[in-house]
Amino acid sequence: MADSLQSTDTTQQLAEAGSEFYRRGWVLGTSGNFSAVLARNPFRICITASGLEKGKLDDNGFLELDENSDVIRGSSKPSAETAVHQTLYRVLPDTQSVMHTHSVWGTILSDHFFDRGAIEIEGYEMLKGLAGVKTHEHKEVVPIIENSQDYDLLSGQIENVVRSNERIHGIYLRRHGLYTWGETISEARRHIEIFEFLFEVIGRTP
Amino acid sequence: MADSLQSTDTTQQLAEAGSEFYRRGWVLGTSGNFSAVLARNPFRICITASGLEKGKLDDNGFLELDENSDVIRGSSKPSAETAVHQTLYRVLPDTQSVMHTHSVWGTILSDHFFDRGAIEIEGYEMLKGLAGVKTHEHKEVVPIIENSQDYDLLSGQIENVVRSNERIHGIYLRRHGLYTWGETISEARRHIEIFEFLFEVIGRTP
Amino acid sequence: MADSLQSTDTTQQLAEAGSEFYRRGWVLGTSGNFSAVLARNPFRICITASGLEKGKLDDNGFLELDENSDVIRGSSKPSAETAVHQTLYRVLPDTQSVMHTHSVWGTILSDHFFDRGAIEIEGYEMLKGLAGVKTHEHKEVVPIIENSQDYDLLSGQIENVVRSNERIHGIYLRRHGLYTWGETISEARRHIEIFEFLFEVIGRTP
Amino acid sequence: MADSLQSTDTTQQLAEAGSEFYRRGWVLGTSGNFSAVLARNPFRICITASGLEKGKLDDNGFLELDENSDVIRGSSKPSAETAVHQTLYRVLPDTQSVMHTHSVWGTILSDHFFDRGAIEIEGYEMLKGLAGVKTHEHKEVVPIIENSQDYDLLSGQIENVVRSNERIHGIYLRRHGLYTWGETISEARRHIEIFEFLFEVIGRTP
Repeated sequence: MADSLQSTDTTQQLAEAGSEFYRRGWVLGTSGNFSAVLARNPFRICITASGLEKGKLDDNGFLELDENSDVIRGSSKPSAETAVHQTLYRVLPDTQSVMHTHSVWGTILSDHFFDRGAIEIEGYEMLKGLAGVKTHEHKEVVPIIENSQDYDLLSGQIENVVRSNERIHGIYLRRHGLYTWGETISEARRHIEIFEFLFEVIGRTP
Repeated sequence: MADSLQSTDTTQQLAEAGSEFYRRGWVLGTSGNFSAVLARNPFRICITASGLEKGKLDDNGFLELDENSDVIRGSSKPSAETAVHQTLYRVLPDTQSVMHTHSVWGTILSDHFFDRGAIEIEGYEMLKGLAGVKTHEHKEVVPIIENSQDYDLLSGQIENVVRSNERIHGIYLRRHGLYTWGETISEARRHIEIFEFLFEVIGRTP
Repeated sequence: MADSLQSTDTTQQLAEAGSEFYRRGWVLGTSGNFSAVLARNPFRICITASGLEKGKLDDNGFLELDENSDVIRGSSKPSAETAVHQTLYRVLPDTQSVMHTHSVWGTILSDHFFDRGAIEIEGYEMLKGLAGVKTHEHKEVVPIIENSQDYDLLSGQIENVVRSNERIHGIYLRRHGLYTWGETISEARRHIEIFEFLFEVIGRTP
Repeated sequence: MADSLQSTDTTQQLAEAGSEFYRRGWVLGTSGNFSAVLARNPFRICITASGLEKGKLDDNGFLELDENSDVIRGSSKPSAETAVHQTLYRVLPDTQSVMHTHSVWGTILSDHFFDRGAIEIEGYEMLKGLAGVKTHEHKEVVPIIENSQDYDLLSGQIENVVRSNERIHGIYLRRHGLYTWGETISEARRHIEIFEFLFEVIGRTP
């Protein structure tokens, strides 16, 4: 454990996403966490520290971790959910950023559709905001995984789900929150916005 | 393709509209686009570039196009939806600005009323915010067009709908978004606000 | 018609109310208007000019009028709804400020309860935010008047309703908007917030 | 009664919470109040003064009180609800801050679940934002107390409820508002956000 991270474009982009998501009510009460890859070799990520309000992240709000989640820089503890971020980076080698939010509509849908195993979204123009999607006729599947406090177990389940659903852009932990990712920070942030918009549309449709 | 646009009152007004619409959740995840006529002869429009977040548009966020949508100034690609803007400027010669947003309530209503062919709005004082409307007894018809990725096809359909519905102020692409227009940028922006307000009223009315 | 108004505490307070109400979606698309008494003898009010966006009012956004609604200062036209403000100042001699907003929930309730003649609100602690109300057991009656473009007719009806309902704090024009008032600008603004909160509570209650 | 309070970290944190809660619509129209312990011996609290807008609190917005609610510093009257804050500090000796908000969803749920005596919340990850809660399987009980204008009576009831429900983090006054608390100001603020999020989830769940 050593000095704090310097302010960088990476931490600024993650902090701006946090500020915006807080304003929209998607990371209330210190919920949510965001990370980005700093280097692949040796592997280093920057991730929000545990237990902080996400609307006003400064440099002390981030940690630099290696692939074992040992703290390289920063003076606080990584969140237990760091294991999920690390799993996603391992399974999805092009991913440069992982974001996790807790919204009202996502929470409700993840419970409502739990028995079907996924939130399915089809026929909306906004789907084209997901990387690689070219038409509104696309059907996006957001697998729902039962929530747990055993993050090793969760990480293993997430790995299986991601490996067997190649084209997905996100997963939902039931009554907990969304994980999505992107090849840039702005792509991950865009995916959060697209999913939250579509969750609200589905949740409000009579 | 040449230099970027200078900051002008036009780009500032469009950027401010983008910032406000983003805050309200009407152009999440790089959705939406806005344009204005710079000159009629030769014909020049200023339009948001493709794939950008609409909450923080700066001068690099806009392109200057001629009537063939060739880029006169700016260094990125115009959006595929530029064809719709060009069609509206051609069919509606008094129009100086076109705006396109994606809202939760509009998306829901455009699907719900698709079989009837239009969202009909009647009896609200807010209708008087639409150009030329003098009484709340006015009945506004917002035609709904099936969404498509074939923008030439869409543009043709939009042209037909606008030509055969002289008094309309907007059209809706099903499960996609609203197009509206005005004789000034502020009129187009006002139309967005009026429609989104009324869509929410209709969507929430039991 | 003469110079514009100087920036004063009065115009600043009205502009701040406008900015906040716009942010909350209660005066979208140039809807709404706000006024305050500048002097009782001779009678002078300050009122928002017609057709302006209410989120960014500067000194050019206000007019000074006498009791006949002739423009003493300012260079634009008063809104047709000025007649309602003047009526309220005449009938309620302690009133120093009148505010008018258009909200989604108010619009819906004013239609839903039109046949009963009023929105009735009882049993909420927030009622104590209305001037003179000492207990949540208070029953507030918000009379609903049919909307009209004949503002002389409307003003007459409003006068009758206010004279025969001494203890009311506001009236609703059906599918149009709320009028409320106060002995200070901040009291009128507080009344807007209290009513809009309670309208949303009633509108969302299953 | 003497000089006003100096701006301190305590007043700034409470003012920031007020600004944020106002923005979210949880303390509209001068509703809500916030306090924090300044010293235990002699006992001193800092609390918002009565009748002020909570979105823009400055140093004049706070009073310093002793354990009898006599004003040590500040030049206005304490709110009648001060008695509830004092009761909570007496019954919960580790509490350093008490916060009280009025939200739309909380108001609705407090009425809907009144006959059951409590709002019960179970199975949500966000519950882990409440101090000491380690798993989403936790069941949080928010007792509902009938509203009253007799604050001595209310304080007595609140004392009984808190003493007989050791593990609770908040109570609701029916159709009035939430009281929650924390061992720091930021913990009390976090509890507000967690409860308001969960009230909205429950209120919107079909």
